[in-house]
Amino acid sequence: MARFFVAPDAISGKFAVLTGEAAAHVKVLRLKNGDGVTLCTGDGTELDGVISDLSPDAVSVVIRRADRCAAEPRVFVSVYMALPKSDKFEHVVQKATELGAGEIAAFPSARCVSRPDEKSLGKKLERWQKIAAAAAEQSGRGIIPKVLAIPSYDAALKRAAESDLAILLYENEQKLSLRQAVAGTPHRTAALMTGPEGGFEDAEIAQAQSAGLKICTLGPRILRCETAPLCALTALMFADGELEETQGDCEHG
Amino acid sequence: MARFFVAPDAISGKFAVLTGEAAAHVKVLRLKNGDGVTLCTGDGTELDGVISDLSPDAVSVVIRRADRCAAEPRVFVSVYMALPKSDKFEHVVQKATELGAGEIAAFPSARCVSRPDEKSLGKKLERWQKIAAAAAEQSGRGIIPKVLAIPSYDAALKRAAESDLAILLYENEQKLSLRQAVAGTPHRTAALMTGPEGGFEDAEIAQAQSAGLKICTLGPRILRCETAPLCALTALMFADGELEETQGDCEHG
Repeated sequence: MARFFVAPDAISGKFAVLTGEAAAHVKVLRLKNGDGVTLCTGDGTELDGVISDLSPDAVSVVIRRADRCAAEPRVFVSVYMALPKSDKFEHVVQKATELGAGEIAAFPSARCVSRPDEKSLGKKLERWQKIAAAAAEQSGRGIIPKVLAIPSYDAALKRAAESDLAILLYENEQKLSLRQAVAGTPHRTAALMTGPEGGFEDAEIAQAQSAGLKICTLGPRILRCETAPLCALTALMFADGELEETQGDCEHG
Repeated sequence: MARFFVAPDAISGKFAVLTGEAAAHVKVLRLKNGDGVTLCTGDGTELDGVISDLSPDAVSVVIRRADRCAAEPRVFVSVYMALPKSDKFEHVVQKATELGAGEIAAFPSARCVSRPDEKSLGKKLERWQKIAAAAAEQSGRGIIPKVLAIPSYDAALKRAAESDLAILLYENEQKLSLRQAVAGTPHRTAALMTGPEGGFEDAEIAQAQSAGLKICTLGPRILRCETAPLCALTALMFADGELEETQGDCEHG
């Protein structure tokens, strides 16, 4: 069934009216009166409905059923990535959305080469958010992960530390594994933080530790900066039972 | 320490002579007499040595110590991917190498759009193998994963089924999780098989089942064809304790 994200104000009781991109998309897919569609309001709710009218600019839908989107993980994972060079962050936004991230944040760190000014960052954010929306629709997510830019490393640490489970992945960590950190901490929210191409500086690791983050290894192989967040996210989702079809209501950790 | 893959015949007792690309690489890195290097023979052995002579075309190394490469997983994972469109397979070769794959195989399936002829496939294989070599060097692998092209779906199934644990990831599977399949099967070798953009056909799933593969889900989110093999590989590595630094000698499964 075709899936569309719609603004909450498109819904009114048992009816919805799609306009703009969603309406255009219905036409691209050549859907007709009577065809079923799934509408996602972006808060994890899914509405199953049937097309009742197609006008040039709008598509009317009669809603039959509302459900919680089964594709949404029970754990809300924030992916924090030091802003990498070129289009690697776009790649991470797309893949992290598919893999179930709750939000994706870019932040600056000492060895970041990419340092966009405010105007160019604004444009990038707009582009990143569109990539997240497209990936969310394609992968059947119930929410569109928000993409954020955090102005400083310090602010990123502080925000990440508010999650139940806050982890920084560091290639020189020799002891604590992600498995141990995940198993040892009950969590409904989690933050995963990874470094730029050149890695974190020692002082940054100490700072993260003081902020309350657990410093973890992803094993003996050196991962590229765009591979590490996706590896960590996949491992966390696996550990939390989120790569399985039947979703119970058990707590994590 | 700089790492280089060398052919076994470059080693003779306590000495090694680097030529060709490896020698050129030493010069690019501006290494000098007395600098330490790590040589990988491609079979999982690492040789620590010191540069003893630099001539225009060759670099001599005195070997101090030979060790098993600690970055090599204890499980040998074969990644089988139905050949996707454009450069997605290159992406999977690079990332799967970083993530610890033992070998990476492309195969045709019913809905594959990309169907290169023999000549173009030969060129692609050469390119893919170079990508694997570069990723292996960069990520500190002890072997270069072999990249293969398997001529038919049938042959791919037959080969995959020879692994201790053989899994096909299918988006319509509702029950068996990767976790259950991995935990239930002692394994030193594993095969992970994923489909093309359009997915597998029902008949192909039945065929895989008859060949002895377990059909598993990766959860309720629909993954792109290039995301699925990397998600499955990461999950398997995590389940097998291969994303941890200290490597014991316990058996898997």
